[in-house]
Amino acid sequence: MIIVLKPNLSSKEQSAVVKEIKRLGYRPHVMRGVARTVIGAIGDETAHQSLDVLRAWPQVESVTPIQKRFKLVSREAHPQNSTVKARNVVIGARPLVVMAGPCSVESEKQLMETAHAVKAAGAQILRGGAFKPRTSPYEFQGLGEKGLKLLAKARKETGLPIITELLSQDHAEMVAEYADILQIGARNAQNFQLLIAAAKTGKPVLLKRGLSMKIEEWLLAGEYVLSNDNPNLLFCERGIRTFETYTRNTLDLSAVPIIKQESHCPVVIDPSQGAGRADLVVAMCKGAVAMGADALLIEVHPNPKEAWSDGAQQLTLDGFSKLMTELKPFIAAAGRE
Amino acid sequence: MIIVLKPNLSSKEQSAVVKEIKRLGYRPHVMRGVARTVIGAIGDETAHQSLDVLRAWPQVESVTPIQKRFKLVSREAHPQNSTVKARNVVIGARPLVVMAGPCSVESEKQLMETAHAVKAAGAQILRGGAFKPRTSPYEFQGLGEKGLKLLAKARKETGLPIITELLSQDHAEMVAEYADILQIGARNAQNFQLLIAAAKTGKPVLLKRGLSMKIEEWLLAGEYVLSNDNPNLLFCERGIRTFETYTRNTLDLSAVPIIKQESHCPVVIDPSQGAGRADLVVAMCKGAVAMGADALLIEVHPNPKEAWSDGAQQLTLDGFSKLMTELKPFIAAAGRE
Amino acid sequence: MIIVLKPNLSSKEQSAVVKEIKRLGYRPHVMRGVARTVIGAIGDETAHQSLDVLRAWPQVESVTPIQKRFKLVSREAHPQNSTVKARNVVIGARPLVVMAGPCSVESEKQLMETAHAVKAAGAQILRGGAFKPRTSPYEFQGLGEKGLKLLAKARKETGLPIITELLSQDHAEMVAEYADILQIGARNAQNFQLLIAAAKTGKPVLLKRGLSMKIEEWLLAGEYVLSNDNPNLLFCERGIRTFETYTRNTLDLSAVPIIKQESHCPVVIDPSQGAGRADLVVAMCKGAVAMGADALLIEVHPNPKEAWSDGAQQLTLDGFSKLMTELKPFIAAAGRE
Amino acid sequence: MIIVLKPNLSSKEQSAVVKEIKRLGYRPHVMRGVARTVIGAIGDETAHQSLDVLRAWPQVESVTPIQKRFKLVSREAHPQNSTVKARNVVIGARPLVVMAGPCSVESEKQLMETAHAVKAAGAQILRGGAFKPRTSPYEFQGLGEKGLKLLAKARKETGLPIITELLSQDHAEMVAEYADILQIGARNAQNFQLLIAAAKTGKPVLLKRGLSMKIEEWLLAGEYVLSNDNPNLLFCERGIRTFETYTRNTLDLSAVPIIKQESHCPVVIDPSQGAGRADLVVAMCKGAVAMGADALLIEVHPNPKEAWSDGAQQLTLDGFSKLMTELKPFIAAAGRE
Repeated sequence: MIIVLKPNLSSKEQSAVVKEIKRLGYRPHVMRGVARTVIGAIGDETAHQSLDVLRAWPQVESVTPIQKRFKLVSREAHPQNSTVKARNVVIGARPLVVMAGPCSVESEKQLMETAHAVKAAGAQILRGGAFKPRTSPYEFQGLGEKGLKLLAKARKETGLPIITELLSQDHAEMVAEYADILQIGARNAQNFQLLIAAAKTGKPVLLKRGLSMKIEEWLLAGEYVLSNDNPNLLFCERGIRTFETYTRNTLDLSAVPIIKQESHCPVVIDPSQGAGRADLVVAMCKGAVAMGADALLIEVHPNPKEAWSDGAQQLTLDGFSKLMTELKPFIAAAGRE
Repeated sequence: MIIVLKPNLSSKEQSAVVKEIKRLGYRPHVMRGVARTVIGAIGDETAHQSLDVLRAWPQVESVTPIQKRFKLVSREAHPQNSTVKARNVVIGARPLVVMAGPCSVESEKQLMETAHAVKAAGAQILRGGAFKPRTSPYEFQGLGEKGLKLLAKARKETGLPIITELLSQDHAEMVAEYADILQIGARNAQNFQLLIAAAKTGKPVLLKRGLSMKIEEWLLAGEYVLSNDNPNLLFCERGIRTFETYTRNTLDLSAVPIIKQESHCPVVIDPSQGAGRADLVVAMCKGAVAMGADALLIEVHPNPKEAWSDGAQQLTLDGFSKLMTELKPFIAAAGRE
Repeated sequence: MIIVLKPNLSSKEQSAVVKEIKRLGYRPHVMRGVARTVIGAIGDETAHQSLDVLRAWPQVESVTPIQKRFKLVSREAHPQNSTVKARNVVIGARPLVVMAGPCSVESEKQLMETAHAVKAAGAQILRGGAFKPRTSPYEFQGLGEKGLKLLAKARKETGLPIITELLSQDHAEMVAEYADILQIGARNAQNFQLLIAAAKTGKPVLLKRGLSMKIEEWLLAGEYVLSNDNPNLLFCERGIRTFETYTRNTLDLSAVPIIKQESHCPVVIDPSQGAGRADLVVAMCKGAVAMGADALLIEVHPNPKEAWSDGAQQLTLDGFSKLMTELKPFIAAAGRE
Repeated sequence: MIIVLKPNLSSKEQSAVVKEIKRLGYRPHVMRGVARTVIGAIGDETAHQSLDVLRAWPQVESVTPIQKRFKLVSREAHPQNSTVKARNVVIGARPLVVMAGPCSVESEKQLMETAHAVKAAGAQILRGGAFKPRTSPYEFQGLGEKGLKLLAKARKETGLPIITELLSQDHAEMVAEYADILQIGARNAQNFQLLIAAAKTGKPVLLKRGLSMKIEEWLLAGEYVLSNDNPNLLFCERGIRTFETYTRNTLDLSAVPIIKQESHCPVVIDPSQGAGRADLVVAMCKGAVAMGADALLIEVHPNPKEAWSDGAQQLTLDGFSKLMTELKPFIAAAGRE
């Protein structure tokens, strides 16, 4: 920790701070500069109590941590890329993985038609929401367990592993029974109780970035998964909230190289939520692949015009198939399969 | 709903949209303008399926809802101010209510000392966290039920009703047994399962605004409480996330007159979280009172320098007492007691 | 400056950084910690070249400045509040100053009617735009010099000093001939050439905060005025851009106590631009006064419904007069006149 | 325009609005809905006065424009892609154009070395700042005209056209004498006087997006160039300001397909400013190319560690050459040369 003192302190005021730093288990290192006195506090910041409380002292101008607060998700802890396995599909290895399917599971017909079509087009994992978090209590909230059963049926028919959202701690075991990957949505990205419940099922967890989550906070939320003995974590960028209103959110593609640099976990891009508009999804997928994403999560619907949720951002079956064709040269350019 | 069509459509393309609007239960009203054709869809937007799916149609440029999506929390539904009662304290009536206490309950001594001091200074409700949501899994997570028991003891000693945070659906009943008001934190503001669980306890719910929550989304989250048969809702602004880094968050005081205009529910301001700095709390409290807040939620600690969480933003006992004195003329100016 | 090195460097790699710090004129102070080596670079950061270039070194993880980058505007440089005089009106002293008038000067009749009315209601300075920055080239751009002449005439009739916006370096002398205070708009807040031109006229400068300007950048933009030999600077908060769309901008009232803490210059609040809605202006004015603003800048129009620009946010003459009455108890509570 | 009225109005109050709409030159179209009355105002919004003033009427809840406010830059006005020519280099055609060079021109040696190196690596245009906008008045402000002369010399030696920033209206003619493309920086993106001055030189204008500029505002700023008889406009995305602090700005790559959809003008991506970190530049360039950018603007310096400005974000000569090699497969995948 670096503690910057206010100017014009008496030596007594200064030494009180130094004493407190020692009391908290750090070795203080005083540097008297031109305009300020600065104290370096040497010690393991993750083992001792945070010196952040010093900000409450009238003598102190600022307190800056030196160590990164995340450990298990960090590249330093695990220099090699880690991979996550959902049945026979490996995410984070050389092949780019595409997860596709409807925003919400609506009916057997809708789901089976989509599942077969996305498989034919090259998707390796089927997505579909059975429990839906909705801004308004008056909107469609998902089919619940009935939706999960349909997903399991679609997996049986197509062989595609399935990913679906976990909304409630109380459903963790039930959802884990059906799903191959548990998705934690953006609104729940700092619902730590849910993260812990998801981690404890042992299933891979895909953690979407919250709408106003800094990279560091996202990594720390991931830390809740790994520190609960579940190493199977995927980070999924799906757009952050900014002032721009043209798109629903601003897809922060820089998150791909940043997460790759700071962490060993695979990175997934969700362009459907990011854009909120099907017509931008293709360009965003190309960008995501080029920037090094390990997987894509794409909303596809046999008839988006009649979808029960988020119709505007879902691709048609044809649109998805065309996307997969257009992506090929970019996948090759990125050195992937 | 107002549907704006793209330019240069054939009449067949236009009539397909008109037909779909009818099919969804609305009466279409076509206006041919200079540059665009616009269709007004007449019908109850909250009773029929949303026309938002039309955004997926290639003919459609934009879809704009006319009706507000929130109902029960709206001023239209309940033109008079509503009030919320926590034991003998009424929030939303003429007296300004001050809720004060430590960020986290740390020990009996710390809590009792604070409770007596804030009562003496004029606070009517005691706050204190027993379950703490922490960005990192390695930080102090609260004393849990032991903390709740201490809060109940402090209430017994001082007569002050207590407010404390509910973090987990699984704890709803337990926390409700002790608390007089359940607080839903900013990170859980769209954790709808938690909101429903809180509502169902029947206890008053204080709903903090999420870090990147639009006013409309906040009102809709409140709708989850009222539509689950709990009319005792308080909206609490505690700062939104912006680009500014001088303060931890940007306290959006405009939320006070806006919520008062759109809703009948009382409005609470939390300047401690908003600023993240004790030295700005006094000015923010004055502003909040002047702008019409019904209550304040303030972090107070006997020794902020040694607090286990968020020390930098907690007032000392003396600081709180001084604040209460300084607030008096503003409370009077605002026509409050 | 504090330089944090990456982990696992050889001693040769470390000493290269140390050598460079010396070469740039600083005294290095090496602290070997548990996880990182940290170097404190002692020296006057404002006199030597910035060590920021070290961020380009592969050995370096981060570089953090210790000293504040602003000097002349800082409270340290001038511990007393400074005041700014526009003719006989002093801003920054005990009396609260209200500047009011139309968004744009539209006609002699409109301006004179407004000027007399705002004076009667208690305003001390007349505002009015002659040159208007407009998002679209097809919108009304102001009456230009004709508008300035009308403002001068209004000043002659009412005795009120005038404030008007300076848009272009080329107009600096002309506008300064008429105006008592030059206003720099939010879009030009980092148009440094315009700031220098305004400063050089010697007239007081009111510097609005840019839509996405951090406090530090705002203070540094003010530094362009003071360092060009013009000590008459007013900082004016008028709302920052956030994700919220209910209001046009988010008025950041915390800026009042912050600027008061960091700087000696007076602080002005513009609630009309901040809200973009007349119905929120009254509450915002109360909040601004309570939080310590030295002056208010308010848009008033005899007939907002027919205003040539920004009608929605201008108060009527009656509305303004009512506001002035309602503000009185808050002005008294704030210890002002 | 769509005008939504408040609920429960008398028919007299409603007809006053209808009358005003007629008076302003529009044909009103009244739709009485379940919860609200909505009025469609038919007429050319870009020819008549804006109905936005109606927002000031107490009867009116909201006013929504239907027509887009930009004309000349719009895809509707010019369905084909337009191209911009800088000497012999065409931007917006099939070949991807790379503009590279130092952030600031520092010396003849630095500039010539860079110019030859970027040419050898495949860049077609040389960039370099002679006038630098700096957040603090105490930072290096550029070599001024001396820098322009060096750029002209570098062009003579290498044949590369040059792009450089225009900071001040007063310099427009001088800078245009030397430069082949005038760059308008992010801080000046709504300095309309500067945009007009740049447009009037007849030289191509590269307009960077302001830090908090919505797409629509950016397009409208471009409209200032085209409406001043200069069709040679390039839009350049360089990162917007968000809450994220890991990168200096958040590069909004979605701007590429959006500008392509809304406008005919070429799109340029500046990853150096976007990231503020050289180590992310390569990934961002790949993403930009994949998403359809017409050109890249990249900062390159022979010795970034000793650069006079923004060292941390400049590539080395080797780094740039490596980037050009790595980009090749993505350029091919994007169907470019």
